[in-house]
Amino acid sequence: MTTPLLNTIQSVADIKALSHSELVLLARDLRCFIIEAVAAKEGHLGASLGVVELTIALHYVFNTPLDEVIWDVGHQAYGHKILTGRRSVFDTNRQFKGISGFPKRSESDFDSFGAGHSSTSISAALGMAIASKIKGDFNKQHIAVIGDASIASGMAFEGLNHAGVTDCNLLVILNDNAIGIDPSVGALKQYLTNVKKGTEKQDNIFEALNFNYSGPIDGHNLPELIVELERLKTVKGPKFLHIITTKGKGLRQAEENQVTYHAPGKFDAVTGDLYKKTGTVQPPKFQDVFGITIVELARQNKNIIGITPAMPTGSSLKYMMEVMPDRAFDVGIAEQHAVTLSAGMATQGLFPFCNIYSTFLQRAYDQVIHDVAIQNLPVIFCLDRAGLVGEDGATHHGVFDLCYLRCIPNLIIFAPRNEIELRNIMFTAQLGLKHPIAIRYPRGRGTIIDWQHPFETITIGEATPLKRGKDIAVLTIGTMATVIESVIASAEALQGISHYDMRFVKPLDEKLLHSIFTSYKTIVTVEDNSVIGGFGSAILEFAAKHQYKNNVYLKGIPDYFIEHGTVLELQEDIQLDVKSLAAFIIKLK
Amino acid sequence: MTTPLLNTIQSVADIKALSHSELVLLARDLRCFIIEAVAAKEGHLGASLGVVELTIALHYVFNTPLDEVIWDVGHQAYGHKILTGRRSVFDTNRQFKGISGFPKRSESDFDSFGAGHSSTSISAALGMAIASKIKGDFNKQHIAVIGDASIASGMAFEGLNHAGVTDCNLLVILNDNAIGIDPSVGALKQYLTNVKKGTEKQDNIFEALNFNYSGPIDGHNLPELIVELERLKTVKGPKFLHIITTKGKGLRQAEENQVTYHAPGKFDAVTGDLYKKTGTVQPPKFQDVFGITIVELARQNKNIIGITPAMPTGSSLKYMMEVMPDRAFDVGIAEQHAVTLSAGMATQGLFPFCNIYSTFLQRAYDQVIHDVAIQNLPVIFCLDRAGLVGEDGATHHGVFDLCYLRCIPNLIIFAPRNEIELRNIMFTAQLGLKHPIAIRYPRGRGTIIDWQHPFETITIGEATPLKRGKDIAVLTIGTMATVIESVIASAEALQGISHYDMRFVKPLDEKLLHSIFTSYKTIVTVEDNSVIGGFGSAILEFAAKHQYKNNVYLKGIPDYFIEHGTVLELQEDIQLDVKSLAAFIIKLK
Repeated sequence: MTTPLLNTIQSVADIKALSHSELVLLARDLRCFIIEAVAAKEGHLGASLGVVELTIALHYVFNTPLDEVIWDVGHQAYGHKILTGRRSVFDTNRQFKGISGFPKRSESDFDSFGAGHSSTSISAALGMAIASKIKGDFNKQHIAVIGDASIASGMAFEGLNHAGVTDCNLLVILNDNAIGIDPSVGALKQYLTNVKKGTEKQDNIFEALNFNYSGPIDGHNLPELIVELERLKTVKGPKFLHIITTKGKGLRQAEENQVTYHAPGKFDAVTGDLYKKTGTVQPPKFQDVFGITIVELARQNKNIIGITPAMPTGSSLKYMMEVMPDRAFDVGIAEQHAVTLSAGMATQGLFPFCNIYSTFLQRAYDQVIHDVAIQNLPVIFCLDRAGLVGEDGATHHGVFDLCYLRCIPNLIIFAPRNEIELRNIMFTAQLGLKHPIAIRYPRGRGTIIDWQHPFETITIGEATPLKRGKDIAVLTIGTMATVIESVIASAEALQGISHYDMRFVKPLDEKLLHSIFTSYKTIVTVEDNSVIGGFGSAILEFAAKHQYKNNVYLKGIPDYFIEHGTVLELQEDIQLDVKSLAAFIIKLK
Repeated sequence: MTTPLLNTIQSVADIKALSHSELVLLARDLRCFIIEAVAAKEGHLGASLGVVELTIALHYVFNTPLDEVIWDVGHQAYGHKILTGRRSVFDTNRQFKGISGFPKRSESDFDSFGAGHSSTSISAALGMAIASKIKGDFNKQHIAVIGDASIASGMAFEGLNHAGVTDCNLLVILNDNAIGIDPSVGALKQYLTNVKKGTEKQDNIFEALNFNYSGPIDGHNLPELIVELERLKTVKGPKFLHIITTKGKGLRQAEENQVTYHAPGKFDAVTGDLYKKTGTVQPPKFQDVFGITIVELARQNKNIIGITPAMPTGSSLKYMMEVMPDRAFDVGIAEQHAVTLSAGMATQGLFPFCNIYSTFLQRAYDQVIHDVAIQNLPVIFCLDRAGLVGEDGATHHGVFDLCYLRCIPNLIIFAPRNEIELRNIMFTAQLGLKHPIAIRYPRGRGTIIDWQHPFETITIGEATPLKRGKDIAVLTIGTMATVIESVIASAEALQGISHYDMRFVKPLDEKLLHSIFTSYKTIVTVEDNSVIGGFGSAILEFAAKHQYKNNVYLKGIPDYFIEHGTVLELQEDIQLDVKSLAAFIIKLK
């Protein structure tokens, strides 16, 4: 690596010893290091490139880690990690047993607050600032760094609204680059654009909330940043610095294609070019199945609407947004709003497909209950990235949705085992259900290349027997069916077991379950969701209700937070992989 | 009732036929009717008195129910209900099988969107407005009426932020009375106060979000309201009307004591005076046990902090706010912020007691997982109003928390069966736990008058055998212990059963459970939480893990939304009362 100055940085003290011109060189080195590291090992690129100067300035001006710097979401914290003792292990970023791709308290004292989901930084920093005040520590600094996409989320507003009536030593830095993962949306974004253009007055929305506002300033001008941060260090009370940056700064392609280079996969570090995809035909991503299918259905059914909270690319709703911009909406990082907006639409007879990542639906849990389910409105929830998501780790796994959704009356819960099932349940849902439905499916590719078959209606509450055998019945939900199919194929001793894709976690196929419980002594449930209150527990509740005494074994996500790694590594680690499951089932025989 | 003009209103058409001076008389009648009805039957008073003129003006100007009026939260919708066909049944308000205390779609076409929780109206109205646009219905009006406490919640901001970039026909009416249930807080409230005083410019925060702003105007001036609403009906795009009202308007005591008269209980309709409480000594409310105990503990432990999202009176945190204003915070209707603020504090070694109603913690579910549990921060959640809450009904019952919390790794879950247990677990928690804890307790009174005993430490994960018998073991959680004690006392045939207060839903007392499962053939679990994924399911999971084949029966909240009524009426309705449970258990013998 051609990063000579960066290599001399052993601690933040070494940064403070540099001259302003050396800091500019350090910025160049740090940017170079990030590009080379992400080019080789994948990860999030654009966000960290955009805050290289800010990162250096913060560690230069403030007394980290005693002063607390909180990175919202955390995609942008690579530079921070590299400068605070993790340069030598940065090649393990996002890898199994390696460092996390997000700030993480257990990893470093410099990571003041863990992140992954957005818009938490102001609340967390304010909590720390109040603590300092209570302890009489009036010199300690508390800094939340938040992007313009994240500050538009309701939670951030709640934090600002509280902070503005305190006299706490809190600095909120708005890193305004007009983009989250996809381009920012909403009225606040338009307003910020006007502030940048100078068409809005200095007396602005943040001053209205009692913050001492400064900016906007160029977030790539390191000397200017340092001067302003030094000044703000002496300002009392809640203060707000608005900086303008360019996502992907320093790599032409990343600046020009900010969405693609948010997390570009491996690329050529010298040219910046992405590596061409290999020509092998692969099964589609579930995301594309969703994205293509909703367009197909929406062409036939004018009442279909698509909604995503800030994930048009990730969810593939972008396809519909391109061809039907009046009927497909990116509402920004606003899961709560997305759900209740959908409920409002459903009252008017529309069919809103509300696509939210499983882990982010946690942000709208109350709205699912209060606005959708109590009123029994037929909103169609598409829960993307359910189950283990891999390298994003603990904050992003979608392993609780079956637990938190199952208790909600009126809600149908379905998990497709493959692309065709996803297509058909989407088709079925827009024919008109009497209830809301949650359709959960994983991140990444399915198993079927030839998936665009004519639509078929799925009978609500009907499971699918995949293989009939004897002794042992394995009940799966969603794509764990594929794992169990491999289990069965893996050993002759397993050829005789039965396998049922239960499909609906709610309502259960009780007729089939009666048949299963009377036919098999031993039943194994397999899910990529927590075994506490999940699909397996639904089966136990059925058994208890009817006083069946079969042996029931639950396999799924254990009761601790699963870290990052490939899905396969994680499955092996928790013994939810083909080999472990095969061994487990063989022992039952 | 002395409401002659009101009595002539059979439909909204009758309102439209009145002259402006008659409308003023109608307002007087409506106010009178509300006062008399609430005085006699209890309910929410102040909010509806404050919007009498607005309610009449809306139905006069707009073409309800085709035009959609959405009342945020819904406390203020009594006048709306009385004018839209429910005057004759209004004496059943909030009663079992009677009309709901909140807007409810199944009750009337005029109730465009159900409510109960706050800050949903803008999102729902926008969803409807987008639907109208898609359908080409450009004349339809969509109106969200939201208070100044509710608009400060993050979800409302998300709705405004989206609406501001649409060209939808949406009118947001800010009913600004500077109070929710308790006085409003936060920077936005201060800002609105300045707008009222004229010290803030017309070019304001709502205009910054692209709304066409008008106001502030006097919300009790009916002719002025009508003129302004007529004008706004012709304005295209998102528009915002700021009206100033007085909560409790028209009843002197309700205006002067707005917190008390939010829901004053029965009172003298003529004088407005509350009825004196009877002198009988009763066990305290769990809320007061919390409120008094936290003060007691905080006097000894300077690191204790109290946090409530807008419920200082309801939760009784007001006691601590009065004596330790620097350490007890009302953060407004901002559950998400409240939880992550607590997490931030916990990183600094403080002991935040974050008191949130069970049903409202649904609003902060992601923050519990992402900011508290993943980082294993010892935040102390006090979940008030867990279980059935009575007259507030489906939107307010706290019957899902055990389901949605149980799957969260690192989290301890405890339910006290009485006041002393609540005191002792609060004492135990502030000694320093290695994990976050959720303490759930119900609305209303406990059972023990002499409850202020010296503190005792509770061993985490330890259950309490209350009565040892044979054949059948009943396992209860929380105050269902009291119900089962009455069950046992109710029949000689039940004297011989065993009763265990499990106390901890997580971690379970596995040692005791092994003893129970080996000693008793039949086990009954009893909880005031959903039986889908709740406490009973935890027991089933334990049994499955160890392959116990006992008969296990789950009693709890069934899988549908429970309506309003007294807790006892509701318990009887779902067979969770003493008589039903006794009959059930006797049949098992």
